[in-house]
Amino acid sequence: MQLLKDRIRKDGVVKQGNVLKVDSFLNHQMDIRLFQEIGKEFKKRFEGEEINKILTIESSGIGIACMTAQEFDVPVVFAKKSKTKNINGEVYKSKIEPIAHAKIYDIIVSKDFLGEGDKVLLIDDLLANGKALAGLADLVRASGAELVGAGVVIEKGFQIGGKLIRDKGIRLESLVVVDDLDWRSGKIVFRGDE
Amino acid sequence: MQLLKDRIRKDGVVKQGNVLKVDSFLNHQMDIRLFQEIGKEFKKRFEGEEINKILTIESSGIGIACMTAQEFDVPVVFAKKSKTKNINGEVYKSKIEPIAHAKIYDIIVSKDFLGEGDKVLLIDDLLANGKALAGLADLVRASGAELVGAGVVIEKGFQIGGKLIRDKGIRLESLVVVDDLDWRSGKIVFRGDE
Repeated sequence: MQLLKDRIRKDGVVKQGNVLKVDSFLNHQMDIRLFQEIGKEFKKRFEGEEINKILTIESSGIGIACMTAQEFDVPVVFAKKSKTKNINGEVYKSKIEPIAHAKIYDIIVSKDFLGEGDKVLLIDDLLANGKALAGLADLVRASGAELVGAGVVIEKGFQIGGKLIRDKGIRLESLVVVDDLDWRSGKIVFRGDE
Repeated sequence: MQLLKDRIRKDGVVKQGNVLKVDSFLNHQMDIRLFQEIGKEFKKRFEGEEINKILTIESSGIGIACMTAQEFDVPVVFAKKSKTKNINGEVYKSKIEPIAHAKIYDIIVSKDFLGEGDKVLLIDDLLANGKALAGLADLVRASGAELVGAGVVIEKGFQIGGKLIRDKGIRLESLVVVDDLDWRSGKIVFRGDE
């Protein structure tokens, strides 16, 4: 998605440790016009698929998911991160073990809002180690719903997440894949570029 | 807003302890068509006001804020809840002391995304004790931005939040005000109804 590549080149900030900061337009401040285009692109990528629900995870996936849901004319459900007790009622739960030194947490979705007959598209902003997206896929499977695919805005191609998700047989559409980051020069290499 | 009253009467669930569950369409599963109408209503309520940014707080405010921002054609910034350390760089911070037995937490916004010259509309889904909204107002004041007003989807009129915010001189637009909840009968009384 050229618009997104251009925006990442313009406003993304590369930091040491393979960090790409996109908080000026994607996950702290949110450029709603860009999100509209992102929603349209996901709609195009999953054209012809039957989808009746979008599932994302709090917090930074929610804005993208809502703008995308508007294109599909379906509701959004967001999974909640929980380090403590369940929300009221019965929930599906999946344990997330993030990268080293980060706390393990559960993600939960009420059984009222996901179940047999649902055809679910997962949406998230970033894909790095893939733990969050894999957790969402687990929730869908546990609920008896059908997982149609997953859409992420930025995939870090040099991390394991993309392979992890594709190896599960999940159709993954990443709007851009970042294959290399050089914090010294600020250079960002996208997959498909020379 | 009649559409919203009808929806709350249809799908809201009253529980003991003055709890109104609206998680089937507002804050766990999100009805995007309803959110579009909510966005249009906020646009109407703040017609003629100069607004260049919407500020909300994670997580359940984000969807409403994005759909509203689309009507105003402005970006959204969401404040993050932080029980630990700062996010990278300089942030504005406000301490939130929720109801008894809940943990105190900070809400933070990067200084990069809020500051002098900004004309800010606060958006959130629920207004009960008003602590979160007051915290957002503090962040705006600290940043030197101008606070144009605040819009909430559901105000619990029998709790202190509405008065707290209005007493600060903040223009508050609540799309519906719930004045009474009876969990035994499931009855919901809206302000303005007989």
